[in-house]
Amino acid sequence: MTVVKSPLHDAARKTVGDALQGALVDLIDLSLLAKQVHWNVIGPRFRSIHLQLDEVVDTARLASDTVAERASAIGVSPDGRAGTVSKSSGIDAVTDGWVKDAEVVEVMVTALDAVITRMRERIAATDEPDPVTQDILIGITADLEKFHWMFQAENV
Amino acid sequence: MTVVKSPLHDAARKTVGDALQGALVDLIDLSLLAKQVHWNVIGPRFRSIHLQLDEVVDTARLASDTVAERASAIGVSPDGRAGTVSKSSGIDAVTDGWVKDAEVVEVMVTALDAVITRMRERIAATDEPDPVTQDILIGITADLEKFHWMFQAENV
Amino acid sequence: MTVVKSPLHDAARKTVGDALQGALVDLIDLSLLAKQVHWNVIGPRFRSIHLQLDEVVDTARLASDTVAERASAIGVSPDGRAGTVSKSSGIDAVTDGWVKDAEVVEVMVTALDAVITRMRERIAATDEPDPVTQDILIGITADLEKFHWMFQAENV
Amino acid sequence: MTVVKSPLHDAARKTVGDALQGALVDLIDLSLLAKQVHWNVIGPRFRSIHLQLDEVVDTARLASDTVAERASAIGVSPDGRAGTVSKSSGIDAVTDGWVKDAEVVEVMVTALDAVITRMRERIAATDEPDPVTQDILIGITADLEKFHWMFQAENV
Amino acid sequence: MTVVKSPLHDAARKTVGDALQGALVDLIDLSLLAKQVHWNVIGPRFRSIHLQLDEVVDTARLASDTVAERASAIGVSPDGRAGTVSKSSGIDAVTDGWVKDAEVVEVMVTALDAVITRMRERIAATDEPDPVTQDILIGITADLEKFHWMFQAENV
Amino acid sequence: MTVVKSPLHDAARKTVGDALQGALVDLIDLSLLAKQVHWNVIGPRFRSIHLQLDEVVDTARLASDTVAERASAIGVSPDGRAGTVSKSSGIDAVTDGWVKDAEVVEVMVTALDAVITRMRERIAATDEPDPVTQDILIGITADLEKFHWMFQAENV
Amino acid sequence: MTVVKSPLHDAARKTVGDALQGALVDLIDLSLLAKQVHWNVIGPRFRSIHLQLDEVVDTARLASDTVAERASAIGVSPDGRAGTVSKSSGIDAVTDGWVKDAEVVEVMVTALDAVITRMRERIAATDEPDPVTQDILIGITADLEKFHWMFQAENV
Amino acid sequence: MTVVKSPLHDAARKTVGDALQGALVDLIDLSLLAKQVHWNVIGPRFRSIHLQLDEVVDTARLASDTVAERASAIGVSPDGRAGTVSKSSGIDAVTDGWVKDAEVVEVMVTALDAVITRMRERIAATDEPDPVTQDILIGITADLEKFHWMFQAENV
Amino acid sequence: MTVVKSPLHDAARKTVGDALQGALVDLIDLSLLAKQVHWNVIGPRFRSIHLQLDEVVDTARLASDTVAERASAIGVSPDGRAGTVSKSSGIDAVTDGWVKDAEVVEVMVTALDAVITRMRERIAATDEPDPVTQDILIGITADLEKFHWMFQAENV
Amino acid sequence: MTVVKSPLHDAARKTVGDALQGALVDLIDLSLLAKQVHWNVIGPRFRSIHLQLDEVVDTARLASDTVAERASAIGVSPDGRAGTVSKSSGIDAVTDGWVKDAEVVEVMVTALDAVITRMRERIAATDEPDPVTQDILIGITADLEKFHWMFQAENV
Amino acid sequence: MTVVKSPLHDAARKTVGDALQGALVDLIDLSLLAKQVHWNVIGPRFRSIHLQLDEVVDTARLASDTVAERASAIGVSPDGRAGTVSKSSGIDAVTDGWVKDAEVVEVMVTALDAVITRMRERIAATDEPDPVTQDILIGITADLEKFHWMFQAENV
Amino acid sequence: MTVVKSPLHDAARKTVGDALQGALVDLIDLSLLAKQVHWNVIGPRFRSIHLQLDEVVDTARLASDTVAERASAIGVSPDGRAGTVSKSSGIDAVTDGWVKDAEVVEVMVTALDAVITRMRERIAATDEPDPVTQDILIGITADLEKFHWMFQAENV
Repeated sequence: MTVVKSPLHDAARKTVGDALQGALVDLIDLSLLAKQVHWNVIGPRFRSIHLQLDEVVDTARLASDTVAERASAIGVSPDGRAGTVSKSSGIDAVTDGWVKDAEVVEVMVTALDAVITRMRERIAATDEPDPVTQDILIGITADLEKFHWMFQAENV
Repeated sequence: MTVVKSPLHDAARKTVGDALQGALVDLIDLSLLAKQVHWNVIGPRFRSIHLQLDEVVDTARLASDTVAERASAIGVSPDGRAGTVSKSSGIDAVTDGWVKDAEVVEVMVTALDAVITRMRERIAATDEPDPVTQDILIGITADLEKFHWMFQAENV
Repeated sequence: MTVVKSPLHDAARKTVGDALQGALVDLIDLSLLAKQVHWNVIGPRFRSIHLQLDEVVDTARLASDTVAERASAIGVSPDGRAGTVSKSSGIDAVTDGWVKDAEVVEVMVTALDAVITRMRERIAATDEPDPVTQDILIGITADLEKFHWMFQAENV
Repeated sequence: MTVVKSPLHDAARKTVGDALQGALVDLIDLSLLAKQVHWNVIGPRFRSIHLQLDEVVDTARLASDTVAERASAIGVSPDGRAGTVSKSSGIDAVTDGWVKDAEVVEVMVTALDAVITRMRERIAATDEPDPVTQDILIGITADLEKFHWMFQAENV
Repeated sequence: MTVVKSPLHDAARKTVGDALQGALVDLIDLSLLAKQVHWNVIGPRFRSIHLQLDEVVDTARLASDTVAERASAIGVSPDGRAGTVSKSSGIDAVTDGWVKDAEVVEVMVTALDAVITRMRERIAATDEPDPVTQDILIGITADLEKFHWMFQAENV
Repeated sequence: MTVVKSPLHDAARKTVGDALQGALVDLIDLSLLAKQVHWNVIGPRFRSIHLQLDEVVDTARLASDTVAERASAIGVSPDGRAGTVSKSSGIDAVTDGWVKDAEVVEVMVTALDAVITRMRERIAATDEPDPVTQDILIGITADLEKFHWMFQAENV
Repeated sequence: MTVVKSPLHDAARKTVGDALQGALVDLIDLSLLAKQVHWNVIGPRFRSIHLQLDEVVDTARLASDTVAERASAIGVSPDGRAGTVSKSSGIDAVTDGWVKDAEVVEVMVTALDAVITRMRERIAATDEPDPVTQDILIGITADLEKFHWMFQAENV
Repeated sequence: MTVVKSPLHDAARKTVGDALQGALVDLIDLSLLAKQVHWNVIGPRFRSIHLQLDEVVDTARLASDTVAERASAIGVSPDGRAGTVSKSSGIDAVTDGWVKDAEVVEVMVTALDAVITRMRERIAATDEPDPVTQDILIGITADLEKFHWMFQAENV
Repeated sequence: MTVVKSPLHDAARKTVGDALQGALVDLIDLSLLAKQVHWNVIGPRFRSIHLQLDEVVDTARLASDTVAERASAIGVSPDGRAGTVSKSSGIDAVTDGWVKDAEVVEVMVTALDAVITRMRERIAATDEPDPVTQDILIGITADLEKFHWMFQAENV
Repeated sequence: MTVVKSPLHDAARKTVGDALQGALVDLIDLSLLAKQVHWNVIGPRFRSIHLQLDEVVDTARLASDTVAERASAIGVSPDGRAGTVSKSSGIDAVTDGWVKDAEVVEVMVTALDAVITRMRERIAATDEPDPVTQDILIGITADLEKFHWMFQAENV
Repeated sequence: MTVVKSPLHDAARKTVGDALQGALVDLIDLSLLAKQVHWNVIGPRFRSIHLQLDEVVDTARLASDTVAERASAIGVSPDGRAGTVSKSSGIDAVTDGWVKDAEVVEVMVTALDAVITRMRERIAATDEPDPVTQDILIGITADLEKFHWMFQAENV
Repeated sequence: MTVVKSPLHDAARKTVGDALQGALVDLIDLSLLAKQVHWNVIGPRFRSIHLQLDEVVDTARLASDTVAERASAIGVSPDGRAGTVSKSSGIDAVTDGWVKDAEVVEVMVTALDAVITRMRERIAATDEPDPVTQDILIGITADLEKFHWMFQAENV
């Protein structure tokens, strides 16, 4: 049964749908990771990083909603369930327990690095089949690369 | 190493920490579930339920942040990572793909039912060791039981 | 037919439902009374009391909505119809016509006194069967006792 | 004792005062009725109607305040006490307990119908004695007739 | 030279223009009077009356702007200069110097009484020639009569 | 089939329905015209007129919504489709292409003139059958006559 | 006479100007259509669809302003007059009179389908001659495809 | 009777009181003048000047309130009655009737010139007896001189 | 003379009054201490801690107002005068002069520790005599323990 | 050790620092005094004075922050600890317990009188050494003298 | 030393970094130029152009921040110092002193023309190496071309 | 040609004009410097300083606008062009490239030091010729000295 008729042809829909599903999982996991260290960070830079992480959370949550609804809009059912995220995320898990501030910065640089690499592949993959989706992925990547710079800048 | 000195004695801290960790996992999973069906709901009541689910998401996200920070405040490191949520949540997973509106309502009634039952056990468990935590759990339960009524009312 | 499944056992639901229904009627009547004297107050203190009464109205309306929806949430249908309020309110009716400012203050002290006494009985009655409802009643009582002090303070 | 000197002659004041007192009672009862079904509505359209009813409540409360203060402004003491509303309202009482969504719509169409008929009589009655009051009643009737259309439109 | 073409015939324009010019002068003078006693009131009720008078000022200023722009809209140049107001206002001047609170209330009741009487004559005069202007005058009179009631109510 | 029961008798409903349908078409066309010259105006007064026209657009859009919903409220289905507007509007079409600023002012004075003449006929026609509709038309005409003055004032 | 010097060469300006003019007409007609059914929808889902349609109206109005001003910015005079819209829109007209809710959803799915197909052709056509215009069309198409999904989802 | 005890000695209070009373009259008259030409301006620059004048009105009204309350604060009863303004203002009256835009600019330059000259004398006069009042007059003069520049700049 | 009639019996009122008076003094002193170090903190973490301290000040000021008004509401006159705070506060005084950032964090951890210990005793003491007051103290303690965690987290 | 390099020479810094330290203590004590009577006032004018006092509190708190940060800005460590305020304030302590409304007004007139006298000495003292600090003290004194007038005006 | 790891390869980073650095300088200079003529414009259109220029300033400032932070995000240190802007801007300097309104419009058309030409080259240059940066430059160019049209339209 | 007539005599205008022109250049350069290090700061304190610098930018931009418009108001054309800033600023240029956080703080302390010294000379120079300008310079200096303290405090 076709619930939502796609504005894309079948092959394009498959490629774009995979890119969006991958982005969805990465962005949800990024929001969970950022909250995890938001709660567990310790050290003299606690407050500054604690606040900064909530900006990552807000951005990642909004972006995950945007890509999921874009998937629906091209007729692909998005999957953002906990099990799916846990299994297919491109981000390495952080250890549990309190984490020192400098280590949190390191963790975020690494996680953003991984997501950005994959997002750039998705931008390339969607260029021909769907410029509308590509434009959405470009906007999200711009935000992620801005956070990436900031965490690196304080990691010197 | 004691990072955060608890205002509670050790036994109390263990009991209360367990209650908070359990609530944290349930609330994160509730927010992920509600988003999942927010994106995948179909049927004539699509728009009404789509909007209603985002109110559950907002409440669950805020509540999960509150319980996690409360755990930190009593000296217990909270764990809200994707893997932890996936493994220890008290909510049954929803199947993937589009879901009919009436079924979404059913799913939400069942999920809220499960979380509420566990929240009431946590309210009982924290009464004696920490009235401050108990008060937080009571407030969250009031919100969840309000959603519970509303989904049941439209399930008639 | 059970429309809304209660999170409470039957006896608890009966006790708590009665407390909420009683509070609902008292709070609606309090809002009607405060509006009545808001419109009919005369005397040099007219403006100050006229404004003060609208704060009581706002609080009582919000509180009546909260207790009614709490009744629904525990599976008890609330009754806030004009006839029910008229018959079962715990507040003495005020006479019709213009009312002097000092008398309005007196009327409000007496009405709040009556409602507070009954609210404290409801707080006691709900302690064991439902701490969630009790917490709601405690919050409302705090507001009412604040108004009670203020009207007394200007009644000296 | 004349507390408030009327800008109207005695006969005009009597006619206009009666129109305003009648409108006051109808509007308070409309607000109580709409809240009653706001709390007790059940069925698949629960959420949509639940929200719609609160718009009626807000309009009716604001309008009741306007007509009561207009009565005071022409030197007539308004009476909006629970007993008065219960005795003299032009709206039929709804039965207690849960009410199905389609029935709620029916109840609201009937209640608005009754109030509108009486409001139009009041508009006619106040035309000559007091165009200021008439203008207020016209504005309120426009709002009520808009709700009347909307409940009818969803009653097809 | 006709600068602004009137939507009214000449006779109607004369009648309506006179009504609007009269209203303009009264409303400007009312705003100046209310500010004068806002600054000069003394006595235990100082603060309450001081604040109440600024509501009169706001209403009178807004209304004077509305009637002046309505005059322009029907092709009649409005005149709100200090000299014109001083010569043709329908409000008795207040004496200079500090004024006791009870006396301020008396002054405002008398001033509003004078303006309202003239506004009602203007409502009658504009009924046939221009219902658009009449509607504006009716709205302003409703506000003035509300203030009239309030100052009387605190004058008991 | 009667979808919406009218508060008016049949003849009144016909008269008032025609007035509202006529107003609807005029107001939609006014909003389209004002946007057209908003985009195409050139000359030294470009910016001032460009901004002024958007105020006309906002007013005309809001007013068209109000009259269309009023038609529904009296049981008459409104028709605001492009073809209907194109065929039955009372406003002369503007030529395509860039338009000099002084000419835009002229175009707006003429268009407002035409609409106002028809609105005043509608005010007269609805006076007896439906004062509620008449009051709405009076309010809209007041706004249109204010714009009419302003464009004339800058046309000197 | 060249009023606005284009940043594009002549051929590019012709291609891009046609794409923008076509989009302008479609978007204005979409806003008129959505308002038409916003006023005429009937059936149990009235309120939900009535509100949803105003979101389409807001989006289409804003988008039509953006594309018209973009046309001006590349030196092409936009044409959004009622007659032009009526003649050249790519959307099928809806019949007059009340429309059942399910049929309204159908009408919107069809209309959005038509506009989206043409928008995607315009995205392709502007890619080479003007990436700035293309980016604007991509953003608007994303919004339209989101509405397209939502109406389809409630059409199951 | 001393109502308000001055923080100043008698001579200082006389000097400062005179400066404030003079400023009060000038500022009220400036606000009346600016409103008069706000309503009566005609010509191509109508809209720009009409809006600009309301900024003068807002500033002059706020400033007149500040100086009047400062007079009260130093124990001097302020006099801002229509008759006083008409008799003692330092601003030349404008003729009645419509005024061309260029002439309005001229009128405002002249009026501001007159007020500024007197304000600078008041700044000099209050320097020694009361730096608090002087600081208030300096702030108001800065605003007036800014308007003075702007009207001159558009008078070239 | 009984100014405010307490809703509590005499013994309860004594116990609860003492708890509230103690909390009042602690909270005022906490707000003064936090401001003192807000002004005197120095070191690389100056800005972060400077901002964080103002959040403590806002919370402590609001909480002190709440407990003082709660004392009044139970008929006990609160005492928050400088001398009383200086004599009976449970917080150790900080030395005067500039304070290094790490030392400020230490000072705040110690001060919050002292207040929290006493607040928990007050929660226990008010449980039986007045659940309304207890609920207020619980809410304040939750806020204080959150700050306590944060200052500890950055103290590692 | 010089932590903050002063823009002032040593003698100037000493004079200005003393003025600021004195103002700081007076303003903190004024805020504590105003809160104390805000909580303890009784009598018919309770509500009006209760609200008025919070305006004093807001002003005094903001002003105390401004002067303390100004002290830091000139390199002088400010001291606003409870003990310092208690020992060196220029305001007489109020007695504990409930205070009648007229007496509260008296207390505030006296306290403001004392602070204003000292503030005027500080304005004189800082004129030559630091016009920047003087300007800040002038602004605060203007606010205090406005309150001083208002409490006197209601003390008649 | 690599401070910020670029998501781009070295050659791409060089090309994109040059484009961003060029845009940064142009945008800062555009904001300084627009402010310069904002202060120095004279003539009858003073106010309209004065306001319009601040919109250019706001846009240029925001855009300069965006491109500078984008440079940092790709690992290139941005240079927006006064000397750099003065030396490398692509905008011709305006002469000092007052500038007539028509000339200001001319100056802005020329300046925007120069910047737009260079921005379009940068859009072309970044297409292949970095679509994320390109998208940012496209958005800024759309804004600049809108201003370009508006200044041209008023230059006729 | 005299475009703007100065409220000052020629010599005064020269002195005051020079002070304002000097302040304008310093403040623009301060805003450019603060943005430069806002983008280039690196190190653990990155985020805190990055945010703090934008507060300096906002203050400096607003202040530069105020002094430039003040120059216009006294009839002196302000010059804030890039070349003028580059040549005549009183602030030392910062080197290009990334800058360590501690060094940024040092840079800001030095830059503020330079500007403050010159601002205090301008305050002295304008005291006699123009107290209105002096008051503006005093206000700006207060803000700069506050930032000066804060950067010094974190430089310990």
